[in-house]
Amino acid sequence: MLVEILAAFEHPQSLTYYLGQVGVAVFAISGALAADRKGSDWVGVLCLAAATGLGGGSLRDLLLRRESVFWIADTTYLWVVIAATAFTIFWVRFFKPPTNALLYADALGLAMFSIVGAKIAESSGVAAIIVVLMGVITGVAGGILRDVLANEIPLIFRASEPIYSVSSALGIIAYLGLKTFGCPPQLATLSGVAIIAATRFAAIIWKIKLPEFTIRKR
Amino acid sequence: MLVEILAAFEHPQSLTYYLGQVGVAVFAISGALAADRKGSDWVGVLCLAAATGLGGGSLRDLLLRRESVFWIADTTYLWVVIAATAFTIFWVRFFKPPTNALLYADALGLAMFSIVGAKIAESSGVAAIIVVLMGVITGVAGGILRDVLANEIPLIFRASEPIYSVSSALGIIAYLGLKTFGCPPQLATLSGVAIIAATRFAAIIWKIKLPEFTIRKR
Amino acid sequence: MLVEILAAFEHPQSLTYYLGQVGVAVFAISGALAADRKGSDWVGVLCLAAATGLGGGSLRDLLLRRESVFWIADTTYLWVVIAATAFTIFWVRFFKPPTNALLYADALGLAMFSIVGAKIAESSGVAAIIVVLMGVITGVAGGILRDVLANEIPLIFRASEPIYSVSSALGIIAYLGLKTFGCPPQLATLSGVAIIAATRFAAIIWKIKLPEFTIRKR
Repeated sequence: MLVEILAAFEHPQSLTYYLGQVGVAVFAISGALAADRKGSDWVGVLCLAAATGLGGGSLRDLLLRRESVFWIADTTYLWVVIAATAFTIFWVRFFKPPTNALLYADALGLAMFSIVGAKIAESSGVAAIIVVLMGVITGVAGGILRDVLANEIPLIFRASEPIYSVSSALGIIAYLGLKTFGCPPQLATLSGVAIIAATRFAAIIWKIKLPEFTIRKR
Repeated sequence: MLVEILAAFEHPQSLTYYLGQVGVAVFAISGALAADRKGSDWVGVLCLAAATGLGGGSLRDLLLRRESVFWIADTTYLWVVIAATAFTIFWVRFFKPPTNALLYADALGLAMFSIVGAKIAESSGVAAIIVVLMGVITGVAGGILRDVLANEIPLIFRASEPIYSVSSALGIIAYLGLKTFGCPPQLATLSGVAIIAATRFAAIIWKIKLPEFTIRKR
Repeated sequence: MLVEILAAFEHPQSLTYYLGQVGVAVFAISGALAADRKGSDWVGVLCLAAATGLGGGSLRDLLLRRESVFWIADTTYLWVVIAATAFTIFWVRFFKPPTNALLYADALGLAMFSIVGAKIAESSGVAAIIVVLMGVITGVAGGILRDVLANEIPLIFRASEPIYSVSSALGIIAYLGLKTFGCPPQLATLSGVAIIAATRFAAIIWKIKLPEFTIRKR
């Protein structure tokens, strides 16, 4: 395991790969926890976990018209979702879900998904703005799908959620910028991930918000 | 008609085809009925019926990156949806919807869609777990879309709906298992359909449920 | 600008193109306004605007399996969404949203999207019923996505919304019919747009509705 992780840092390809798997696990857990109080059985929990963990990447792959959707080409992702869901069901039976820890885990998931999504879009040869957008979609669409399926207003449309997609976009722009100025890809990748995670951490700790949007009634 | 049905049993290809058409009709009716009390006009009813009847297969075709979505390649499915919707609008004007009969019809629709979806995934040459998943998606995604569009928590996320996707998965696994052990495809197909329908019937009659998922609050 | 608009009338290709851009802008504004009272920040507003403006065409492109989704192939659409959103955020800070004007703008957007969508489907060589359906999907799916994301029952499923998709279908059928009888494509295009806009205007002014669908309880 440790060897694989170290190897990952030498092969940017596998770095992307492991970032993606960890992101899927984290988001699957957040999806599974969202099934609470909806009266779901285990299968419902698994579905919601799968939609959250795989939804963003699936939408990206469909929009980019990639040859195959990532979890169909490589079923490891599905097993990761199943394992993460089983773990969550087991955990909440005995322990309280570590809400704060999960907020930070979610920030890491967002960071990994955003950069992985951007890198995949890059390799499809699309315009830079599309690379940024695909990274953001990979990062946030799973959570939107989770909220739509659980019949709640998606977090992203509520200002109470501090600057979720802004973090994602900032990190991707930093990643692209660093690469343009000759930074080695692995370092740029890790910097992008770090920026997203750090801005989210800061937003969570200091409750940073963007101004709310309301229409003036007269 | 009878000749065609008999012929269908000799040509597995056409068996799949007729199973699919019946499934579309049944799900379209369940979608049309879901428009009740939402204040829909006829077009809204038709849209909800189409989303329910065609949604699962469309998602499957998009995810598998098939050459064309099934109802675009063969518009018969659309006419089936239109006829089923017209029939439903006419029926509920004069008669009470046969709620119980519909629960059983829905079980049959699930059975047919699941196996048809699995067979289509099989012919795309994907891994076995993807075949199972695509069958389940074909069977349940239409209903999820119906509930999302009608702004309700999808049935699948409520434990009150007894083992919907579990039935679907069981039947597909049985179908794949039987084929692996040399069972002729037609028999395996019909067995898969029968297992899904039978487990759903049993679940409806005896109100079988999976345990509910709730997070322990302390 | 004026030259370009005049040129558009000589090149049906570019006529379609400008109709599409205007449609995206109008729908993006309607999406941005829907974020009101949901507590969205600017990014949430932008997301909802993008989903509304680009959702219908994206679904059409995915279902038709076109080589690339329209706003990925031509990023102008994205800038139109961003500009329209910025304009809306700025406008509602100082002025009341012109609700009535927007209803009419929305009717124009529907008219443009429907015909543009139908023309794109036509060029994919699908059956006539699919051309009509793709036009309607392009016209109405963005609005459905807006309502689903904002956690409301989509307008299309409420009879209170007068004959939205019926207008769209009528205009597309008129467009196809005129072309079949030898009408020059540009005139057929503009006639289709005019019919949709006119029927919607009439529906708004005289509050025309289709009969509501309810199940008789006995």
